Parts: sequence; structure tokens; C-alpha cells
Amino acid sequence: MEYLDSLNWRYAAKKMNGQKVPAEKLHNILEAINLAPSSMGLQPFHVIVVEDEELRKKLAPAMYNQPQIISGSAVVIFAAWDNVTEEHIDEYLRNTAKVRGIKVEDLGGFRDMLMNAIKGRSAENLQQWSARQAYIALGVGVTAAAIEKVDTTPMEGFNPAAVDEVLGLKEKGLTSVVALALGYRDDSDHLAKAKKVRRAKEEFFTHYVAEYA
Amino acid sequence: MEYLDSLNWRYAAKKMNGQKVPAEKLHNILEAINLAPSSMGLQPFHVIVVEDEELRKKLAPAMYNQPQIISGSAVVIFAAWDNVTEEHIDEYLRNTAKVRGIKVEDLGGFRDMLMNAIKGRSAENLQQWSARQAYIALGVGVTAAAIEKVDTTPMEGFNPAAVDEVLGLKEKGLTSVVALALGYRDDSDHLAKAKKVRRAKEEFFTHYVAEYA
Repeated sequence: MEYLDSLNWRYAAKKMNGQKVPAEKLHNILEAINLAPSSMGLQPFHVIVVEDEELRKKLAPAMYNQPQIISGSAVVIFAAWDNVTEEHIDEYLRNTAKVRGIKVEDLGGFRDMLMNAIKGRSAENLQQWSARQAYIALGVGVTAAAIEKVDTTPMEGFNPAAVDEVLGLKEKGLTSVVALALGYRDDSDHLAKAKKVRRAKEEFFTHYVAEYA
Repeated sequence: MEYLDSLNWRYAAKKMNGQKVPAEKLHNILEAINLAPSSMGLQPFHVIVVEDEELRKKLAPAMYNQPQIISGSAVVIFAAWDNVTEEHIDEYLRNTAKVRGIKVEDLGGFRDMLMNAIKGRSAENLQQWSARQAYIALGVGVTAAAIEKVDTTPMEGFNPAAVDEVLGLKEKGLTSVVALALGYRDDSDHLAKAKKVRRAKEEFFTHYVAEYA
């Protein structure tokens, strides 16, 4: 399958060449990120897409001046909700009712399920959970970008508090958890030609095959 | 792009029809999961693929008897490492050196970086970090399955301790964190026809466009 070629082609680019990702490709990658699954469909995170070069320059020190911030075409920052509240759930249900053309009252059972899922959990615990959902979307976004032949660098190495400060996230109840630089690899990046390293299948997987296989 | 059609087609199937996922498609989806990026390439998790029906029956109670466990074709369980140790890192470096045909001593700088990344962090903190890497792979796997027109149900709703007990994970230093049922949707699942709900773009994204756009 072609997508496997794409996933084999991709690597975490250490150097990018400054070439701009066309608007349509960026649009598609963001569409994929929005379509990523999340627990109960809640999408408990926000995605900040920074193409603006001035803002990327401001972000760079908060992201340890990794060169892809500037030599890439955009930096996508995934920010988890600091908490998941009843208001979040009701907003989600209103949206669901609107999209599906039903009454919000018809979603009572689903509301109970959602409320039950957050009941008694600390904000910190819910933020960890939200962060995990953002990581699913990162995986979908990386795959989409690879299919679009757009290079990516997933990034955890940044100072979340400093990034949140630059983007004004704290006051919005958000914390940056992971980022993705988008752009095009620089051919002088020696890792661009290095063989991909993955754990051997027999170590990475335990496979209980079908008895009737 | 075709992958966007696939992502629009997918949903978290609530009912599956018992049809078997062909070995080649399953192989491709697992290949994609193995190719998913992870922090520094460490892949700090293990993936258990349960096709065997008897074992799925044993797992079912630990997974709240969600019907897809049985009516799906396989259950894929992502288990995070309970800790990330110096031995893990050295094993990774030995594999890297082997794959790339270099000496492990040539990776000294990378070793320092890896050791630095785990230094002073608790096992619990490292396990949370490992879990997040597994969620990236889940996102890649869900996308791969959608492209293969294989249905999936991502699952967090299970009892990790009970799943770990059935699969003997604890003694291997692993904890189940998320799962993915693979199979084919049952057309009687009313959600199969429901309109997909996603947050409106203007609420999900903040987009700082390029000044020169």
C-alpha cells in the first residue's frame, strides 16, 4: 500500500529547507487532524497553527531554538484542555445535536456516560487524558503529512510554560503538550538518508493468531 | 485526497459483523503501527495482537464485555513500558548500530541525549510518557485501517489490571493503556449512518497565517 511507502519515507526531519507547504496540503493535514478519533468524540484539545514568521521567531526560544521552527513552513501546537468540565460536555452535546439534527434532550444517555467518565477525576488526571487524545491526532497528522509528501518533526522538547505564555494559552485553559513542525527536509540532513530503525517485529509484537487461521 | 475520504468513512464501530480481516490487511496495519514515530525513536511500548478467539473470550470480561472484542476480528492492545531504563536505551542503541551498520560507540552523543531525557524522572512519569507514544501509534494504526477499509474501535474503557493479568503483562514490565478492535461494521449499528461530529474549525484551530500568504 502506498501509505506504507509514505510512512517509510517519513522521518523526523532535523533540518528543513525553508520551502513553503502549499495551502491546500496544509488544509488537508489540518482536516485529518480534526478528523482524528478521540475518547467519546470529545476532542479535548486545541490546535494552534503558526505560519506567521514573526510569531515563529517569538516561539523559537521557548522551543529551544530547534531550527525547524524557522526553516519549516508552519509549527502546529497541540494544547490539552486543563480540565474537562460539565460546560465542555454540554457544549459538545449541543454541537452533536445541531450536526445530527436532533434534540439535545435525546442525548441524555450519552450525557450520563460523558459525565460519568469525568466524575471524581482531578483536573490533572483529566489533563493527562486530554493530552493522550492530542497524541492520537498527532499520529493521524503525521500520517496525513507523509501521504502529502510533507515532512514533519514531532516535538516534545520545549518549555510548555514559555510556549503557553507566547500564545496566551493559560488564560484559555490550555497547556501545550506536543508540537509538529511541517515543512520540507533539507537534503544536507544526514538523517534523511539514514536507514529507519524500528524494533524487530518479534520484539515489538506478541501475536496470538486465530486458531482457525 | 483519498485518505481524507477514508478518515471521513471511519467511525468508532459499536457493532461488528464477525467478518475476518484478511491477513494481508492486518499485516499492513501492524506495519504502520510499527512505523509510527515515537519520542527519539525509542518505541517504549509493546503491542499485543489477539486474533485467537479463545483468548478474546478470556479478555472480554476485563474489557467490560464490549461486543467488538468478540464480533471484531482482532483486538490490538497497546501496553506502555512501566519504566524506561538504561538497559532499554542500550538495547535501542545496539539495534540502531546494527540496522545502520555502525559501531555502538559512534552513538555516544545520542546515548547522552537519551540518558538525559530519562534522568531524574520517576517510573510513573516515564510510564505516562510511554503511554503517550503508544497513542501516536494508535492514531497511525486507525488511519492505516481506514485506508484499508477496515473498521476500528479505539478503546480506553477496560480494566488495565485485569487485561494485564489475562495477558501476563505485569511480569514483563508492561501496562495496557489503550486498545483497538479491528473488524467490519455491522450495518445495523445506527451510528454507522450518523453524521460525523467534529468541533467547528474556528473553534478547534487558531491559525496564525503567514504574513506573506
